Amino acid sequence: MFAPVYLDHNATTPLDPAVREAMLPWLGERFGNASSRHEYGRAARKAIDEARAQVAAAVGAHPTEVVFTSGGSEANNLFIKGAAAMLKPGLLAISAVEHPCVREPARQLRKSGWRCEEIGVDAAGRIDPRSFEVLLADRPALVSVMLANNETGVIQDVVALASAVKAKGGWMHCDAVQALGKMKVDFRALGVHALTLSSHKIGGPLGAGALILDKRVEVAPLVAGGGQERKLRSGTENVMAIVGFGKACERAMADIELRAARLAALRQRLEAGLAQSGARIFSADAPRLPNTTFFAIDGVDGETLVGKLDRAGFAVASGSACSSADPEPSHTLLAMGVEAGLARAALRVSLGVGNTEQDVDGFLQALGENLASLRTLAAMAV
Amino acid sequence: MFAPVYLDHNATTPLDPAVREAMLPWLGERFGNASSRHEYGRAARKAIDEARAQVAAAVGAHPTEVVFTSGGSEANNLFIKGAAAMLKPGLLAISAVEHPCVREPARQLRKSGWRCEEIGVDAAGRIDPRSFEVLLADRPALVSVMLANNETGVIQDVVALASAVKAKGGWMHCDAVQALGKMKVDFRALGVHALTLSSHKIGGPLGAGALILDKRVEVAPLVAGGGQERKLRSGTENVMAIVGFGKACERAMADIELRAARLAALRQRLEAGLAQSGARIFSADAPRLPNTTFFAIDGVDGETLVGKLDRAGFAVASGSACSSADPEPSHTLLAMGVEAGLARAALRVSLGVGNTEQDVDGFLQALGENLASLRTLAAMAV
Repeated sequence: MFAPVYLDHNATTPLDPAVREAMLPWLGERFGNASSRHEYGRAARKAIDEARAQVAAAVGAHPTEVVFTSGGSEANNLFIKGAAAMLKPGLLAISAVEHPCVREPARQLRKSGWRCEEIGVDAAGRIDPRSFEVLLADRPALVSVMLANNETGVIQDVVALASAVKAKGGWMHCDAVQALGKMKVDFRALGVHALTLSSHKIGGPLGAGALILDKRVEVAPLVAGGGQERKLRSGTENVMAIVGFGKACERAMADIELRAARLAALRQRLEAGLAQSGARIFSADAPRLPNTTFFAIDGVDGETLVGKLDRAGFAVASGSACSSADPEPSHTLLAMGVEAGLARAALRVSLGVGNTEQDVDGFLQALGENLASLRTLAAMAV
Repeated sequence: MFAPVYLDHNATTPLDPAVREAMLPWLGERFGNASSRHEYGRAARKAIDEARAQVAAAVGAHPTEVVFTSGGSEANNLFIKGAAAMLKPGLLAISAVEHPCVREPARQLRKSGWRCEEIGVDAAGRIDPRSFEVLLADRPALVSVMLANNETGVIQDVVALASAVKAKGGWMHCDAVQALGKMKVDFRALGVHALTLSSHKIGGPLGAGALILDKRVEVAPLVAGGGQERKLRSGTENVMAIVGFGKACERAMADIELRAARLAALRQRLEAGLAQSGARIFSADAPRLPNTTFFAIDGVDGETLVGKLDRAGFAVASGSACSSADPEPSHTLLAMGVEAGLARAALRVSLGVGNTEQDVDGFLQALGENLASLRTLAAMAV
């Protein structure tokens, strides 16, 4: 198989070899329904409990606060819809740069009488304090703000936001899918009622995620049935994926500072090179995840460039992967006031632990060559 | 690891070795977010499309009718809640022997103004025609009846039921999770609007299932977001599990008649032995899946016997695995009019392709020995 250099770790990550080792027995002699009351069932239950402890430890939560789901999208939907189902319809405030799996369930709630409003962001993609204050004055019942953005990598001050929301009696949710494994994530320190995590963004497998849920918050299940996960998520537990998720959490946490420093150094190299290509780096001055660079080169179509870089052996994204099927420019950039033309030129490079200086240098070279050829074509078309 | 003889295939199944082979590359060099527009993303998309065709072929559906979910519980919830969300609240009729992942979402709908009624069953666990007629006269908007029961293995005449429901303008859903791989399942021949399938009951991995959905039926997504699966199920697709599910469908269908005949012969051997132990086999005279025997021996506690058999090296179930955490006797047996005491004595043996005559004979011997010791204890306690 042709294996391009992978620079799209915010979309998904290759499996950590140690995670694979932990999972392999569950593709072989180990199997079982964790609800079964025999040896196979007990072994599956034990493996899930160990993974639950690993996930909890990664974010400073108690294992009983971990609700396993099939992934981050489901965890976000579980909180938004599940919490709303326990409350009288009121105000739900989400940031204007949330992932679609927060925005869409929020929109669905309008049908049930909820008012759903967006908290604006400034030009750097940070929550606009005035927009937040205005909505806070209306006492939102539910607020959801992500810890770090999937496209820009911008980190929000969730601690301050959560404190303000709680002071007004609201429930605060935080999507930490992109933050996990790239920065310290502490459930208690954040002070939120619920936190969403995903396995496949941190070297774990697809098919597992979690909602870390404060026990004082009641949510209705999205998937009801056999009563697994304290009746909050029914369905036979995906043992293999959960085991992998637990191991990935353990691995990512073991050397998070080292990982972050390494990623930051690589990104510095990348962004120094991009500056020379005349790229505009979005949110350059905001606190950002160490691995993410979202940039645009005026007059270049992002989709076209992604295709050319792919053929040159470099896998990057033009927008957030989950909405790449969507031809609209990034809603994150539009919310930041970026003009639609420039937003359509956007490219995202998201580095991972496997990337090297060579990868970055090779990418910069390929980018330069493709820009030159695109500019030649543009000049000929005039 | 101590490896008891596994006789609990209706709870979950060991992974088919060919399925494992198909999945392994996705734990190694292959990975990707199927929404990404680069080589990794396209390869993931292609693998999912191939699996979609395999799943569709297994049930005679069109690939575009397959909506992948994280499993059968989610697929059942997706249809029940998702269809209800598109309709004015009305009557939802489900059989009294449905799996909890149909019963619980049905109950949740009562909060939204739906009337949820159960269709009774006869002493053999078959839909009671009179109970069905009474509910049909009220023109149910939604009806859900399983193709084969997880505990008794009883097969319902879904073709006739679906035809009657459709004639009255209702939408008919069928949970075929236990039927798939053990009998022929044909989406068109059944004439239902929606069909639920699960991977891990047919030698595939946990973490994948599907709702086969007639395009004329609109359902609201349970997990909303990035818009995957025709906007019916958002979230990054679990490529590895979907690939395994597709392969498991292909494998199960390739020799379904042979498999069914082999299982039926093994079960005949089992039931002949059980008859000699004085066991009452539930639904013995109803059409049943070839692999399932649900039986009770009067005066014996099912839970205790499961524990003893487990220690003797045989893994069986006392009730349906998904509700084994529930101390209540099987709701299926209670619906069949079985007295609670006898229901508490129930044991389920569900055979699989890996089982042998030796497994059956060993189980019968262990059962006999344990019954003798339980009876001695009971006699001493008097």
